[in-house]
Amino acid sequence: MAITMYDLAGVDSDRRFSPFCWRARMALAHKGLEVETVPWRFTEKDKLPQPSQGRVPVIQDGDRVIHDSSAIADYLEEHYRDRPSLFGGEVGRGLTRFVQNWTETVLQTGLVRLVVLDIHGHIGPQDQEYFRRSREERFGSPLEEVVKDREARLPAFRSSLDPLRRTLERQEFVAGKAPAYADYIVFGAFQWARSISEFELLAADDPIRGWRSRMLDLFGGLARQTRAYGG
Amino acid sequence: MAITMYDLAGVDSDRRFSPFCWRARMALAHKGLEVETVPWRFTEKDKLPQPSQGRVPVIQDGDRVIHDSSAIADYLEEHYRDRPSLFGGEVGRGLTRFVQNWTETVLQTGLVRLVVLDIHGHIGPQDQEYFRRSREERFGSPLEEVVKDREARLPAFRSSLDPLRRTLERQEFVAGKAPAYADYIVFGAFQWARSISEFELLAADDPIRGWRSRMLDLFGGLARQTRAYGG
Repeated sequence: MAITMYDLAGVDSDRRFSPFCWRARMALAHKGLEVETVPWRFTEKDKLPQPSQGRVPVIQDGDRVIHDSSAIADYLEEHYRDRPSLFGGEVGRGLTRFVQNWTETVLQTGLVRLVVLDIHGHIGPQDQEYFRRSREERFGSPLEEVVKDREARLPAFRSSLDPLRRTLERQEFVAGKAPAYADYIVFGAFQWARSISEFELLAADDPIRGWRSRMLDLFGGLARQTRAYGG
Repeated sequence: MAITMYDLAGVDSDRRFSPFCWRARMALAHKGLEVETVPWRFTEKDKLPQPSQGRVPVIQDGDRVIHDSSAIADYLEEHYRDRPSLFGGEVGRGLTRFVQNWTETVLQTGLVRLVVLDIHGHIGPQDQEYFRRSREERFGSPLEEVVKDREARLPAFRSSLDPLRRTLERQEFVAGKAPAYADYIVFGAFQWARSISEFELLAADDPIRGWRSRMLDLFGGLARQTRAYGG
């Protein structure tokens, strides 16, 4: 029986834009597991398997319900040990956490301030009300103000990607010769941007672009199947 | 026969301060290999095994001479496979490169602008001339200017350590439950600062401090044996 995954969607249900859901989606594909996704919106708290944390991704695998992308990755690694590993062992798992923390404190933190208004533009009216209120509270200013000077902030954002850029100048994937869960974590952020925004994050000659294309090609072009902008 | 390692030293030959040499020193200890270090100064280019790149670390293992900390780690992993692994497999090796690139583009880049004048204060007159000239060329300003506002830059430097901090809030080592080469890369930077500067990089309650102490305790307190400041 296929695993069910609750996946954040825009007003267009084919637009799947959560960076955390993309981590889970790619991890499921890495393990070669069949999945049926259920489009889910921010304000549909009661449509998740109960008890819920009110957030996605959530997967249901037979009787088991697992919340949170990190818990899902750990679950998949543990319960599908005979499938390709997401971490490549304990050192890989430890270092994946470092990549995750870099992604969440540097990459996603910089990114959201470039595209948060574009997210708002792709969700339904009820979600918009929730999204604007919760994000404006977090940023302490209107969404329009948050992104206003995004062109001016782009050089600093691009510079903050130096550790990723230098890594991808020297190897095909973040995890080396082949992709692993650390790649899916970083890719989730780019897929998030790509699915809701026309704003190009990377310079034309940025070596990160080649990796982004390779990630889009994985698993039969899985990540190209969502409604998105650009490459 | 013990491996010989050429190790950057200050005017006091017990002050070993190169972040790259500390990577190699810790990697050798991780592999449980006996080592004899040879103190070496910036301007002693002709004292290295030839042909040389004029830089340390260099190790000599029997007939083999290996230059460069990354090449040394790869050599040790390959030639001492029966000893504890530095990378924990191919994914670990790939992700270690990400940690290295973060260390070199963020941590060490921020750090050198805080302590570069202190390095100058701990090397001999001939080295000082070389060091000042080469570093002032790199920074485009006198060393005194580079560090002048270091107190003011400390909050931004500390904030740049967020990926490391968050990782060490959640696990004992960068590589997870036990230290691996990625830990030695990051630690090399802290050991560099500690061996030549009284300037405290970390706030009193920073969780990175606990890890730094654990690193100093490894291998019988190996990293405490150099002349240094503070904990």
